[in-house]
Amino acid sequence: MSAILNAVESLKLYRYEALSAPEIKALLQRPRIDFTAILNTVAPIVEKVRQEGDVAVREFTAKFDRVELSSVCVPIEELPEPTLPAEVTTAFDTAYHNIKAFHEAQRSSPLEVETMPGVVCRRVARPIAGCSTIVLATPPRPDGSITPEVLYCARKAGVTHILKAGGAQAVAAMAWGTASCPKVDKICGPGNQYVTAAKMLLQNSEAMVVLLALPGADITAIEAELSRQCDALPRNATARKALSHSFAVQVASRDQAVDFANLYASEHLIINTEDAEAWVPLINNAGSLFLGRWTPESVGDYASGTNHVLPTYGYARMYSGVSLDTFQKKMTVQNLTFAGLQALGPAVAKMAEVEGLEAHRRAVTMRLAAMS
Amino acid sequence: MSAILNAVESLKLYRYEALSAPEIKALLQRPRIDFTAILNTVAPIVEKVRQEGDVAVREFTAKFDRVELSSVCVPIEELPEPTLPAEVTTAFDTAYHNIKAFHEAQRSSPLEVETMPGVVCRRVARPIAGCSTIVLATPPRPDGSITPEVLYCARKAGVTHILKAGGAQAVAAMAWGTASCPKVDKICGPGNQYVTAAKMLLQNSEAMVVLLALPGADITAIEAELSRQCDALPRNATARKALSHSFAVQVASRDQAVDFANLYASEHLIINTEDAEAWVPLINNAGSLFLGRWTPESVGDYASGTNHVLPTYGYARMYSGVSLDTFQKKMTVQNLTFAGLQALGPAVAKMAEVEGLEAHRRAVTMRLAAMS
Repeated sequence: MSAILNAVESLKLYRYEALSAPEIKALLQRPRIDFTAILNTVAPIVEKVRQEGDVAVREFTAKFDRVELSSVCVPIEELPEPTLPAEVTTAFDTAYHNIKAFHEAQRSSPLEVETMPGVVCRRVARPIAGCSTIVLATPPRPDGSITPEVLYCARKAGVTHILKAGGAQAVAAMAWGTASCPKVDKICGPGNQYVTAAKMLLQNSEAMVVLLALPGADITAIEAELSRQCDALPRNATARKALSHSFAVQVASRDQAVDFANLYASEHLIINTEDAEAWVPLINNAGSLFLGRWTPESVGDYASGTNHVLPTYGYARMYSGVSLDTFQKKMTVQNLTFAGLQALGPAVAKMAEVEGLEAHRRAVTMRLAAMS
Repeated sequence: MSAILNAVESLKLYRYEALSAPEIKALLQRPRIDFTAILNTVAPIVEKVRQEGDVAVREFTAKFDRVELSSVCVPIEELPEPTLPAEVTTAFDTAYHNIKAFHEAQRSSPLEVETMPGVVCRRVARPIAGCSTIVLATPPRPDGSITPEVLYCARKAGVTHILKAGGAQAVAAMAWGTASCPKVDKICGPGNQYVTAAKMLLQNSEAMVVLLALPGADITAIEAELSRQCDALPRNATARKALSHSFAVQVASRDQAVDFANLYASEHLIINTEDAEAWVPLINNAGSLFLGRWTPESVGDYASGTNHVLPTYGYARMYSGVSLDTFQKKMTVQNLTFAGLQALGPAVAKMAEVEGLEAHRRAVTMRLAAMS
């Protein structure tokens, strides 16, 4: 490249103004990864964990991490309380306080818009699965135990289970569930290409139709009407085929209907009852809700104001439909005063030291030393 | 299944109370998809489009859609104004008004929290790439033209280019860019398993380090200090290896630095200048911003209150880091009065008719007829 100024041992240096457009483009490139090859490596791991559960996780951990596990996933309360120096726990407690304060402020308010007279659209937030089960996956130490610092933070953060594994096998164990590891709805966090590939493989899509019949609903009349409506449609063969994948469930109460609806996590949920509004707080898993007899699904599909790019295949358990959020991203920003760094710096330096990241520690201590 | 009540032609019926836990679990299953096979089918399509661009898109469209395209992707202003009946355009206009009103109300306010004295954390929203280029992919009609209803809506929605293709080849063309199709930052919308697989293949991850040196920065001094700091680190070989993938760019102005930073879309962006605050409104693409000399990256990584699960590999162009949003999903809800359905129903019925979805149309017209 013509614009290169030097190529000393530590750093290649370019002058921006001397760079051509293709040269800038080349600098913006990140290394290409052959994802197909990685996926083909990861797929058998994911499949073996699906079929064999803990046995497969134990086998892959022995192979990749060289640790023989006695237990694969353990409830956190069965693990001994970690003992750590007070300055370490204080550092973690400071981080916990700050991170909690910033993220609590991110709670969204419910939104309601009457897009035209008589057409009310709302958006409500729901935690994913209430997060009553939180699994932390962490590769074990050579003796099969968990790093005490990780355990301390996991307890503080409300983790309920520790999965002693990493890599694609850990992602698969959480996605499918095993005898010892609960099945989870969402998998978050950093990971190498194998972890990313495993996450990809565990996603896919498709759809069907379910009728929940409340007490008093005349199923025979509904089926007769369904049949009549099918016959009247220009593409009645297609409609009948769709119905052949579908089914009805007779429920004895609203509670049963709500239970099933939340388990099923449908893309569209039509609540065709007099008291439909009273159901809304009970529904946790659905893409979009259609309330009462004057709100057929087609109004939402076309024109009520919401949209019908919704999560299929049970993904309403963990995903939202398309919204303005889909087209926005959010950047975080932090700005510390010198006093702020004096107050927070020691906690950061301590955690960097504990993690063995000396350069991260020095980024703090050298700044503080420069002013003293 | 013991709980099955009947199996009439149209619908299988179960009684909820008679269902065992495994039977409920079976009903909740969606068909399993062999994603590995699909990925292996899609990967060569994606790769061919990357290498051959429009030629490959033309070839796949001939093969899968049986249409010989003269042009692959066209600026929308080059297409003729579609002529449609007034009642059709009115229906689309009503939908547009409602959808716009609901989604405009979803704009988020910036967030600012002083998590501890002197430690200010913020979150700011940015549209993805300003959306100045919007490509709509739609499979062409047999004569190679675009459905006029699609074209009318595309114009209204601000689409700038129409890509006359569908499937994995359309996703790949938008992701890589071709001679006629602009490269896009985010791909949204429905699609079958092949489209989903193509989207998956076009994601991956990794990272490196870049220094942007403003006028007056003493690069020689910086390099000497970098070298000294590296030597002092316990893992100096690792640090030197990381630096070998990295580079510096000498810029002549703040504008150049901002340009490059936005193009590069880094995970962490440290703005170590006296006027760092003034840079914030100019930065569109970064995971997290660190302002001024007292805000080293390690404070954000550990304890300022933001978190360091951030988008790597240039994904800060279209993704946010982890936030409360990551663990929430949002459901839309709609509730129409009879008057609301009277007002909105005709527009919905008209659009369903135009799309040939008779059952969707009847869901509206039969309700309105029942009351008249």
